[in-house]
Amino acid sequence: MNTIKNRISALQTEMQKLNLDAWYISGTDPHSNEYLPARWQTCSFISGFTGSYGMLVVTRNDAGLWTDSRYFIQAEDQLRGTGISMNKLRVPNAVSPEVWLTEKLKVGNRVGIDAQTISVTGFKNLKNTLAEKEIELVETPDLFETIWIDRPQVSTNKIFELKLQFAGVPRKVKQAQIADALKKTGAGCHVVSMLDELAWLYNLRGSDIYFNPVFTGFGWVGENENYLFVDKNKLPSELISKLKKEGIILKEYAEFYSFIEEVKNKKVFLDESTANYSIFSLLNKKNEIVSGTSILAKFKALKNKTEIAGFKNAMKKDGVALVEFHAWLKENIGKTEISEFVIGRKLADYRSKQKDFKGESFSPIVGYKEHGAIVHLSVGKADALPVEADGILLFDSGGQYLDGTTDITRTVALGKITAQQKRDYTLVLKGMIALSKSKFPYGTKGCHLDILARKPLWENGLNYGHGTGHGVGHFLSVHEGPFAIRQEFNENLIEPGMVMSNEPAFYRIGEYGIRTENMMVCVEGEKSEFGQFLEFETLTLCPIDTTLIDLKLMTNDERSWLNAYHKNVNSELKPLLAKELHGFLDELTVRI
Amino acid sequence: MNTIKNRISALQTEMQKLNLDAWYISGTDPHSNEYLPARWQTCSFISGFTGSYGMLVVTRNDAGLWTDSRYFIQAEDQLRGTGISMNKLRVPNAVSPEVWLTEKLKVGNRVGIDAQTISVTGFKNLKNTLAEKEIELVETPDLFETIWIDRPQVSTNKIFELKLQFAGVPRKVKQAQIADALKKTGAGCHVVSMLDELAWLYNLRGSDIYFNPVFTGFGWVGENENYLFVDKNKLPSELISKLKKEGIILKEYAEFYSFIEEVKNKKVFLDESTANYSIFSLLNKKNEIVSGTSILAKFKALKNKTEIAGFKNAMKKDGVALVEFHAWLKENIGKTEISEFVIGRKLADYRSKQKDFKGESFSPIVGYKEHGAIVHLSVGKADALPVEADGILLFDSGGQYLDGTTDITRTVALGKITAQQKRDYTLVLKGMIALSKSKFPYGTKGCHLDILARKPLWENGLNYGHGTGHGVGHFLSVHEGPFAIRQEFNENLIEPGMVMSNEPAFYRIGEYGIRTENMMVCVEGEKSEFGQFLEFETLTLCPIDTTLIDLKLMTNDERSWLNAYHKNVNSELKPLLAKELHGFLDELTVRI
Repeated sequence: MNTIKNRISALQTEMQKLNLDAWYISGTDPHSNEYLPARWQTCSFISGFTGSYGMLVVTRNDAGLWTDSRYFIQAEDQLRGTGISMNKLRVPNAVSPEVWLTEKLKVGNRVGIDAQTISVTGFKNLKNTLAEKEIELVETPDLFETIWIDRPQVSTNKIFELKLQFAGVPRKVKQAQIADALKKTGAGCHVVSMLDELAWLYNLRGSDIYFNPVFTGFGWVGENENYLFVDKNKLPSELISKLKKEGIILKEYAEFYSFIEEVKNKKVFLDESTANYSIFSLLNKKNEIVSGTSILAKFKALKNKTEIAGFKNAMKKDGVALVEFHAWLKENIGKTEISEFVIGRKLADYRSKQKDFKGESFSPIVGYKEHGAIVHLSVGKADALPVEADGILLFDSGGQYLDGTTDITRTVALGKITAQQKRDYTLVLKGMIALSKSKFPYGTKGCHLDILARKPLWENGLNYGHGTGHGVGHFLSVHEGPFAIRQEFNENLIEPGMVMSNEPAFYRIGEYGIRTENMMVCVEGEKSEFGQFLEFETLTLCPIDTTLIDLKLMTNDERSWLNAYHKNVNSELKPLLAKELHGFLDELTVRI
Repeated sequence: MNTIKNRISALQTEMQKLNLDAWYISGTDPHSNEYLPARWQTCSFISGFTGSYGMLVVTRNDAGLWTDSRYFIQAEDQLRGTGISMNKLRVPNAVSPEVWLTEKLKVGNRVGIDAQTISVTGFKNLKNTLAEKEIELVETPDLFETIWIDRPQVSTNKIFELKLQFAGVPRKVKQAQIADALKKTGAGCHVVSMLDELAWLYNLRGSDIYFNPVFTGFGWVGENENYLFVDKNKLPSELISKLKKEGIILKEYAEFYSFIEEVKNKKVFLDESTANYSIFSLLNKKNEIVSGTSILAKFKALKNKTEIAGFKNAMKKDGVALVEFHAWLKENIGKTEISEFVIGRKLADYRSKQKDFKGESFSPIVGYKEHGAIVHLSVGKADALPVEADGILLFDSGGQYLDGTTDITRTVALGKITAQQKRDYTLVLKGMIALSKSKFPYGTKGCHLDILARKPLWENGLNYGHGTGHGVGHFLSVHEGPFAIRQEFNENLIEPGMVMSNEPAFYRIGEYGIRTENMMVCVEGEKSEFGQFLEFETLTLCPIDTTLIDLKLMTNDERSWLNAYHKNVNSELKPLLAKELHGFLDELTVRI
């Protein structure tokens, strides 16, 4: 705790030097990465809170951290004794850090921020809210450079090409797609600052970020522009030649900001929700900015045929790994010592035996009994609960394969279970099935569909505090936009080719958590005089625990869906499983 | 047709005098009335189109009308031969009048508009879109004053007080509620320009507008301000004394604009989506404008206990009238000559026998066979179809009673019906029941719930092109905001006390239309650790035709809901119906 207090105090000293009354730590890096490279884990460095979503504000004599319901419990635990208050976001009557600041500070006060670590939207909102109370927002240097001794450097890991057999569409074609879409906006070039968009555009991958096979860089693309800013030492020389031959101009990563400072009299497209404010601020001086949802994000979300075929292949491998894991669990539970941590490692081990496996797609969430109710739990070796032949276990995990990214959650009975557990589990399953089976006309958005997954819970006065579905990248980020299935408004339509999760859940704090998550792809359905209808095809191939189902609560249609799903899982996985597991697979996929 | 051409030509002459290249007719009046007083039926005067939603733009050599899917067929019919093009709104790739104008006009052109006939939002959007192409938007006088000989005057109908036994809450209390809510916005007074908000605030009613029991006026209300602008000749002298005694300052309607021109250094709250631009433009010069959803609209939507009890009483009367009508229809169909028009009149006749009936709440929509597919059909004596003992009839009608406003649609079989008609009818009914039965946590919005009503249709590749539910005023407008159940985003929550329609539908163009509409009130349901849950209580008391139901498509839960509904309808209406109709009511509400 003293370490934390000392760090905050060091920061306050730096703030004083710059005559700042507060410093705002947005909790992100220059690329809006979800999983932060070590160098940018500033929130964790200064507060000790290790959740993936957090913002921090330090004033001359106070400090507050903000996070959402996934991390309330974890943050309270980790902040205890640091003097940093825990503040809830995305709950009714939430007090945002901006509002908190206006309450703490006075007219004429100055708030500092490193503008490379906040999106344009974030900066503008913050600036406006503070301006209403006549508080100034000031761009400052990165103060961590001074107070963080031994701060990690940017990774130097090698970049490799994702072959066309996996990527499906050549770089040239992607550039042409973007140039074409740019024309409709009047802009001539597009800033690429999100690392997954950069990796997608150039069919390149790296390993700079935990769980996301991306590399640190920037892009600048248009009909007549094609720049990739990257540490050239990370590129194999043959790849350099190949990219150059295709007309891609390679520049050093460090050159990006000076490059855009020189750009003038252009119409530049950028996504204010993801581009950092420094980029905007440099370009805005001499150019016209066209703002909108990233064109790359939109194209990237619409998976091509090769990518979808890849996902399907990845799902078979993932399914085999999960059945093997399940068999190991069944064999050993109650007999040897197994912890949540061990289970996480075992899941990765079984996946790693599969072809083209490149790593986990996120840190596995393995929640036994009361730990299951901590939504984005991350347990280390030390705090992992022992798992026994009793109650229920939730595990959410995924793999990165060259042919696709997976994300799956299953909840399984390990022993004695209660009627309430069965009811809760069945309500969650009914929601998952309702969304899986849904049919809807072109034009439907995620916020329209979300209720399908919640309805069975709502009818019983229950709910869950997170979204229902997120986009999944193709051998890229396990969470991607621009659409989502959740209650919040989001203008992006659900369109054919989009791959997403379907993960309703239910948590009884202090008791257990339930989540059942499949991945799906949106496909065209019936076309009638009332328009083109769309539906979902489930991608995930893994048994859903039928012993936890309260059959009385299931309709015939729901049973049919589950039986058809299990029949498919059985026939897809059996040829790939060792003979001795065939009986076990039959058991897991039994007709109900 | 020549009349229309002459009028457009007269308008073009006036435009030329003012050096205008186009004139924009927003299709509304200074109070954003849905049903326009005769004086403001400008769109109909100039084009001949009589639908309730239309915009018109006239250039030096062209004219276009815009409307939505409710009126596509009607508008095409009515515009034939006028030279005015029909343009679709609220469809994919719709070209708005603004965009149409930018395509027709050139840099430096001038577009005129009477700013009293457009909302602030409308004016700003129009101005911005035109400015992008360097086209100027100019405030002009009302050109209809010149070209419309014999233009009707503002109504001089008397105003009356809605007694507390119906209104439930005194004027003073409403003023205090508004003053309290205003404080949170920092504003000291609220512009009241919507006539239903004005009537609600002062517990007064009038008859200036067809179907809406309101009077023409403006209001200006805050903690220390309470002005009512109205033609004083319309107020009985005792009412004048009473209002004055309560501290309400009465001013002439015509004085409003000069009054606000004098206001200075205040913070004034107005709803930019409903206040006309002239109001904004006059106030904005010397005051600070606080914009937001009308505070009066929000309070008005939350019906008080007296209003809800009134609605329930009105529904009994409405139900009796409808059963009597149905009995008459059954008795006479196929025997005497009955037209759609006659049916509309009969519906009003039966309602008019009920206590405290004050008129229809909208022009009845009676659609037999193919006419049923015209969503907001309005047939006169001349074009009404004869109704025979065959096929299906849709009728949507409502009453204004002192104790509440009603809005109900039923679709009934008059003779031979097809399997497809039964299936379509049942899918619509399933959607209506799903929304009626829904339970949802506090925080849910209309766009989240909309899918419940559409899902059974969507599953069969079918859909309807309008919203699912609208707010209903208490002895006020049959359509009111600020919330709605439809796919479009709307930030307003569904809250306890809100009264609304539930009206999924299905239309086969050229064949028939189906709509089943009940009114419901939102009420509190279960309160759990997951929040306060809400649900709906159905208000409408009228049998739903069970002979049109395809029972194979109904779940047990849906049948139970309908049986419980019919049991309630039977027990509520029977004591109020003549003995000879008891058997008929039993037939209509038979268990399925």
